[in-house]
Amino acid sequence: MSQVVRATESQVTGDLYAEVRTFYARQMRRVDALDIEGFAATFTEDGEVLHANGELAKGREAMVAGMRAALPRYRDIAVRHWFDHLLIEPVDRQGAELRVSYYSLVTRTDRAGVVTFEPTFTVEDVLVRRDGRLLTQSRVIHRDSPVAL
Amino acid sequence: MSQVVRATESQVTGDLYAEVRTFYARQMRRVDALDIEGFAATFTEDGEVLHANGELAKGREAMVAGMRAALPRYRDIAVRHWFDHLLIEPVDRQGAELRVSYYSLVTRTDRAGVVTFEPTFTVEDVLVRRDGRLLTQSRVIHRDSPVAL
Amino acid sequence: MSQVVRATESQVTGDLYAEVRTFYARQMRRVDALDIEGFAATFTEDGEVLHANGELAKGREAMVAGMRAALPRYRDIAVRHWFDHLLIEPVDRQGAELRVSYYSLVTRTDRAGVVTFEPTFTVEDVLVRRDGRLLTQSRVIHRDSPVAL
Repeated sequence: MSQVVRATESQVTGDLYAEVRTFYARQMRRVDALDIEGFAATFTEDGEVLHANGELAKGREAMVAGMRAALPRYRDIAVRHWFDHLLIEPVDRQGAELRVSYYSLVTRTDRAGVVTFEPTFTVEDVLVRRDGRLLTQSRVIHRDSPVAL
Repeated sequence: MSQVVRATESQVTGDLYAEVRTFYARQMRRVDALDIEGFAATFTEDGEVLHANGELAKGREAMVAGMRAALPRYRDIAVRHWFDHLLIEPVDRQGAELRVSYYSLVTRTDRAGVVTFEPTFTVEDVLVRRDGRLLTQSRVIHRDSPVAL
Repeated sequence: MSQVVRATESQVTGDLYAEVRTFYARQMRRVDALDIEGFAATFTEDGEVLHANGELAKGREAMVAGMRAALPRYRDIAVRHWFDHLLIEPVDRQGAELRVSYYSLVTRTDRAGVVTFEPTFTVEDVLVRRDGRLLTQSRVIHRDSPVAL
């Protein structure tokens, strides 16, 4: 947690907050629509995703292949990713690179309207600005696990 | 999805983002409090809601009548509407009209504290500014359904 | 509801909205990590929490003691607090004191990945600014209950 809860806390402007939330609103519509190519296009060409199970998809092509292989999991299911508690940390002064972490809840609604849930996750992204637009450069997905008491 | 994910993406200011989220925070408190008249007052006089089942409520009066008829569904239930992934698109330069879409999750908590869920929805609103304040002019509610594979 | 839905509605700036959301993003990471001292440190020294069951924790020390006693509830459970529909109301012009209310959903994910839910809550906070940073001065947690019809 030391990474995301610092003693010196940089303030995020309202404009940047709105921009990042809008970026994810678009990115999640694409993944939830199973628009695999459209989703991959919200990453940099060399973007990567480290899944909670340890699998690493490196580059858009690998990402597309991995998601295509996973498609059968979404047969007859409307999946939706819900985010909360975004922490946005500009890495540089220009805001060309951002570290963003957030909670994620995933719902699966079947044709009968019954909703089930995947385990909750915490996600750590690096976003970069290319030609003025944000793209995901890397994503690390952590499955939430109990704290040792 | 082409409506909400455009090639040319207008930026939403932080102020507008906060204003729209605050508008919905107030509107949802009213609907979840079953304050039917108060909820209807957050729509324009001729405002309309197209429900996921195809039913259209046209104008505040019809809205109020429809909600009153549905009240028995909320007996002994605390309902809460949760929103996420708002996409806010100003239709004009003055921000007098906004297209807003968002995810919606609906919880129903009974007296014993047991939470159940309605199917997830995606909602498309048109908001307009009247005397400086936002009102909903139209709402189309889509029940989320599986993508054809 | 009259407290949070006023006829005259003050506008919240995007910057303040982002600041408050970021404050909660940090505070919730701490409570969900069971970082009790870190969580208590996001309250003023004399801060208090009135729980939904009527229990009052007054001051950081009482807060820490109460949370420590409750720890066994989180054995083998990853808890996450989800917020929505924040209403932020500056009490003064300087923004040194804010009234904030929000919806809260609490997930509990067990080691097998099964998600269960606590009843939904609505929370009313008073936040104050100390040395430029926000702290919670008081929190009142309401368990959501059905509206009398």
